[in-house]
Amino acid sequence: MTEITITSPLDMHLHLRQGDMLRLTTPLSADFFAGGVIMPNLIEPVDSVDRLNTYHSEIQALCKDKVFEPYMTLFFKQYKKAELEQVKDRIIGIKLYPAGITTQSENGVSDFTTIEETVSAMEELQIPLLVHGESNGFVMDREQEFLSVYQTLAENFPDLHIIMEHITTADSVEFMERYDNVSATVTLHHLMITLDDVIGDLMRPDLFCKPIAKTQEDRSALRNAVFSGHPKLMFGSDSAPHPRHKKECIGCAAGVFTAPVALPLLAQIFDEAGSLDQLQNFVSTSACQRYQLTPPQKTIRLQQKPWTVPDFYGDVTPFYAGKTIGWSVVRT
Amino acid sequence: MTEITITSPLDMHLHLRQGDMLRLTTPLSADFFAGGVIMPNLIEPVDSVDRLNTYHSEIQALCKDKVFEPYMTLFFKQYKKAELEQVKDRIIGIKLYPAGITTQSENGVSDFTTIEETVSAMEELQIPLLVHGESNGFVMDREQEFLSVYQTLAENFPDLHIIMEHITTADSVEFMERYDNVSATVTLHHLMITLDDVIGDLMRPDLFCKPIAKTQEDRSALRNAVFSGHPKLMFGSDSAPHPRHKKECIGCAAGVFTAPVALPLLAQIFDEAGSLDQLQNFVSTSACQRYQLTPPQKTIRLQQKPWTVPDFYGDVTPFYAGKTIGWSVVRT
Repeated sequence: MTEITITSPLDMHLHLRQGDMLRLTTPLSADFFAGGVIMPNLIEPVDSVDRLNTYHSEIQALCKDKVFEPYMTLFFKQYKKAELEQVKDRIIGIKLYPAGITTQSENGVSDFTTIEETVSAMEELQIPLLVHGESNGFVMDREQEFLSVYQTLAENFPDLHIIMEHITTADSVEFMERYDNVSATVTLHHLMITLDDVIGDLMRPDLFCKPIAKTQEDRSALRNAVFSGHPKLMFGSDSAPHPRHKKECIGCAAGVFTAPVALPLLAQIFDEAGSLDQLQNFVSTSACQRYQLTPPQKTIRLQQKPWTVPDFYGDVTPFYAGKTIGWSVVRT
Repeated sequence: MTEITITSPLDMHLHLRQGDMLRLTTPLSADFFAGGVIMPNLIEPVDSVDRLNTYHSEIQALCKDKVFEPYMTLFFKQYKKAELEQVKDRIIGIKLYPAGITTQSENGVSDFTTIEETVSAMEELQIPLLVHGESNGFVMDREQEFLSVYQTLAENFPDLHIIMEHITTADSVEFMERYDNVSATVTLHHLMITLDDVIGDLMRPDLFCKPIAKTQEDRSALRNAVFSGHPKLMFGSDSAPHPRHKKECIGCAAGVFTAPVALPLLAQIFDEAGSLDQLQNFVSTSACQRYQLTPPQKTIRLQQKPWTVPDFYGDVTPFYAGKTIGWSVVRT
């Protein structure tokens, strides 16, 4: 039976949520990953040292018997340099949301001319800037329209590490190549689905996410770059659970819950692409190099043995619910 | 209070369904319209004289105390000329679905080279051809990709009246102009929404339909043509009810239920566009001329008086559920 061993897999974009959902999601990520970048878009955003410490403690308490490092982020707002100096060692970066662009981003940035002072301090202190890069334009054009913002940031702050989160288009792949200080995360689902899967047949709330899945050409560009072991592309699941009543309703929330299925499905699609040897890079090495991380030591064995995804985890429908994947995690 | 009187409004594309749903929907259309073109995509398609007669009788029984003419259609398949001669006077046209393209279209056409004999007989007998014009390509390109099929039909059968059903793109408007034998229907919802409304904010199963709503530019092209009183554009609601459990679920069915709100909302958007004087053309005159119809005499008065749309009709969420429209039907 084909097996592959992954050392210290990292999920560089993860929504654990809070309360009951946090209790559900944290062990599901901590079982499989050595660490994850924890997104700060809670109902009250993680935008102060107090909230950061509280959230960090909650997460740590939920994985105290597991090897899992929650890499914390702050929600971008205008921070003073002194505040950033104080918090610098407790965060992996600061996550910037354009206002209103996705789940709980109402307090995000609405005027990009106001962010310079904070971003400049981040550059000086070497705090990475993680960005949800979408405009408020037509849903299929939002990511492309945001590239000019990325360009301004990349050129004005050459020593700032900028991470284009969950890129979905060929344009974004091409843009990311052009600046040494720009990296990107790619989700599992954007490697697998296109808009046709979301609304081309029946409508699929479980596949609804932001950015929305794009065209076959876009997906091909992502796949080609990821499967060839691109050194600036990192796995970030953007695993974003919502309870069923927030998905199967008029007004379905954006987010695909992939964390518990990510590694087996990644193994499957890398295997199908003949690129299993690049999986370690995508789910760990690339992130360690780009972020200069030394994650906790953890070994995950994946084997080519079928596994049927549960229909639900708690009250959340996962990606690939009820379907059988050709690969599974070896439980030890 | 501003009022407008519409004579014999017609809904040239209507799904009444069957069973309990038929009992719910039929009076809701028959209350407001003088007639409707009844789509044949039932679980067992209306593709024989027997089924046609049965379905027609069921509908008539449900509106026997109302002025409403159900203009029946057959589901396109290969029919012999003799069959068509037999049924000709009982139908307004034959509806062609590409196989699998929408709700209950599995028995549709998968090879367009096989349809010539039937279409030729339809041309000879002057039976209009109503078409759901989408390819099986990328969801945003399907209508545009189908234009070559329309072109072949329009050129090879110059005496056949071809109706492009529920057009949604600027390309379709432009194409329709080019052939005298081609008309088109336009829905209410495609005059109002774009893809941004469907998946740009929260995901909206109640706005999910086929063809999917497109861009602002496409909507503008539709509006400009409709509001200017285009003589080849007819109102067809494509009102397509599904019970809540088929909409608010993983795998939501396509269709927007607009029949009971169509006339007030049309009055509102025509009024907003300064085109109230064109509403009669869009909802009746144009269809009467293009189809050579003399519909039952019926008068509907609309007034500029607010009306709040119910949250549900039976178990179906209507378009604009719970919202207030500036116009209403004067009940007499």
